[in-house]
Amino acid sequence: MHAPHSDLAHATADILARLRARRPRVHCITNNVAQNFTANVLLAAGAVPSMTLAPEGIGAFVASANGLLVNLGTFDAERREAAATAIEVAAEEGVPWVLDPVFIDRSPPRAAYARTLVARRPRAIRLNRAEFTALAGAEPDADELIRYALDTLAIVALTGEIDLVADGARHVALENGHPMMTRVTAMGCAASALIAACLAVESDPLAATAAALTVFGVAGEVAGARASGPGGFAVAILDALYDLDADTIIERAKVT
Amino acid sequence: MHAPHSDLAHATADILARLRARRPRVHCITNNVAQNFTANVLLAAGAVPSMTLAPEGIGAFVASANGLLVNLGTFDAERREAAATAIEVAAEEGVPWVLDPVFIDRSPPRAAYARTLVARRPRAIRLNRAEFTALAGAEPDADELIRYALDTLAIVALTGEIDLVADGARHVALENGHPMMTRVTAMGCAASALIAACLAVESDPLAATAAALTVFGVAGEVAGARASGPGGFAVAILDALYDLDADTIIERAKVT
Amino acid sequence: MHAPHSDLAHATADILARLRARRPRVHCITNNVAQNFTANVLLAAGAVPSMTLAPEGIGAFVASANGLLVNLGTFDAERREAAATAIEVAAEEGVPWVLDPVFIDRSPPRAAYARTLVARRPRAIRLNRAEFTALAGAEPDADELIRYALDTLAIVALTGEIDLVADGARHVALENGHPMMTRVTAMGCAASALIAACLAVESDPLAATAAALTVFGVAGEVAGARASGPGGFAVAILDALYDLDADTIIERAKVT
Repeated sequence: MHAPHSDLAHATADILARLRARRPRVHCITNNVAQNFTANVLLAAGAVPSMTLAPEGIGAFVASANGLLVNLGTFDAERREAAATAIEVAAEEGVPWVLDPVFIDRSPPRAAYARTLVARRPRAIRLNRAEFTALAGAEPDADELIRYALDTLAIVALTGEIDLVADGARHVALENGHPMMTRVTAMGCAASALIAACLAVESDPLAATAAALTVFGVAGEVAGARASGPGGFAVAILDALYDLDADTIIERAKVT
Repeated sequence: MHAPHSDLAHATADILARLRARRPRVHCITNNVAQNFTANVLLAAGAVPSMTLAPEGIGAFVASANGLLVNLGTFDAERREAAATAIEVAAEEGVPWVLDPVFIDRSPPRAAYARTLVARRPRAIRLNRAEFTALAGAEPDADELIRYALDTLAIVALTGEIDLVADGARHVALENGHPMMTRVTAMGCAASALIAACLAVESDPLAATAAALTVFGVAGEVAGARASGPGGFAVAILDALYDLDADTIIERAKVT
Repeated sequence: MHAPHSDLAHATADILARLRARRPRVHCITNNVAQNFTANVLLAAGAVPSMTLAPEGIGAFVASANGLLVNLGTFDAERREAAATAIEVAAEEGVPWVLDPVFIDRSPPRAAYARTLVARRPRAIRLNRAEFTALAGAEPDADELIRYALDTLAIVALTGEIDLVADGARHVALENGHPMMTRVTAMGCAASALIAACLAVESDPLAATAAALTVFGVAGEVAGARASGPGGFAVAILDALYDLDADTIIERAKVT
């Protein structure tokens, strides 16, 4: 299927160009470990991050944001309260939001909480295989992803060696990325934030989600070619995101 | 005005030398996103950071510190309580403190809170244009900065493409820095921490504030010449701060 | 004593090989400043970090972990509650844990709290000279370390220019490392996390603790040879940890 590949690759380059031009504000409720790297990924790609969790301020931040991330890593009472307000404001203001149910396979209470958030209509859910199984109670294959996307009306983005992105009718497979991405913390968290940034500038949520993961994966490949270890890789992927041009995306994107 | 330029450049080199010799302790109440980078900026420059927020411990940390930063990013109940104790202890012990009212333009409750802190007599306030307008209710030009500094008895440091630093009588303009500083998170927060470190070793608060911003801006220029993107830039500015010598400061400082 | 040196160097190489093969899960209750770097050190070395503090989830994380770190930097009510649950679960499940009593010399309440944790039987305690004195009420020499280790049944690891690691009967001195390690935040915190990772794969706690500090010190030397400042050093030590081979460890280890 050369045409759809080429279409999605061109769409990805176009979405990144819009992201850089419009500089969307992305508010992130995310874990302590990921906050700094996530902010730097968003800035490198062209978005403007904010990260406050305080109950009295978060409504105003989300209302003036163009995208929202709710990441469940290091989740606590403060983040739970912040998420409740943020999701309510996002629904009122039409701000698309992304759910990243980090490590719900390691914590049943967190998995139960994640299911209540899914019912609040995230535009996209990004997670790994173990997290999908904990959330959906099913094997993470393409059919189950499509079914879960249909049930939840969310884009389901399963990341791993190959990424699968599904809506309720179809799925795409994305094969960009680099093994070193598993050796640096917060890579998945940052990818989820990038999905929120792309949703802010692209109304087709499947295209936006696929674009974010493709941009991040291609940047990872560029970084992997430059770096000799995970320290240098984390630096190089920021430089690659900042530098990435349309030709590199179109040449390297592996979307089917 | 060659003479004042040259004077302030020499004063800056001298203040950095004292900072390295005395290794002041700087306690930082700052946002989660900025904590790691801020600590590394302080260490690279020669200061000793601490970051606790716990109510039972913070008084002892501030009492044994030489400077204090109160940064309002990701502000929450814990930080509010920490700030109340910290500012009280700082006043008792004569520890100079810096207010960084992050993102108050995005959150009216945070702006109101910032105004209560200004009344507690920070030695310096560092902020950007939008934050100044939210705080002072006025356009961020040199006259308004001087007026606000006179009202508050604080040094007002407005950072942007050109930095303006004012006390109640005069202002200086600082033109060092690099565009990549806007593409890495926590650069402004770290600059505020560096102001606290310089206030710890220099009794003239205008000179201390200008020195911190000049040192940071010159380090940014050195880093910008070495780095190809924001990832490498964040690394290189730490190396540049660590390496910076008096000749480079005097040669590069653009103070008028 | 050439033989024990050589023995411990070989044991260190062997412990690192097992760490990489088994990929132990290490749960970290640690300070905000250190979380990201600590996670990246663990990943670079081959372990799998988790960092949640939430009371409803932490029990499950610790129960499924192979090692636990309790670090007292930026300690607060949330971390105190998390530590209570985590240590209880660790005791039930036989998960070895490491205490890192950060900055207790700056906060008497924190020192008192640290003493209550020591009574809960950490497998190892890593600290600097000032922290040892605040904890044990004694000078940090080898005899006092052995005495304190005998009293507490913990390995006592004193880090500094020379590291001393003691159990209740003997001590070893470790001389690897690089001066730049004092110019990057969270180096000690990350070393403590690495001790927890080594305890997960080695039943002799003295050997595990010495191995972690030797691996970290040798990686620091490799990084110091590559880096020109603290920014590059923090990157290079992650790359060095990832790359470190048995020959380099055996050749460079300075254990007596």
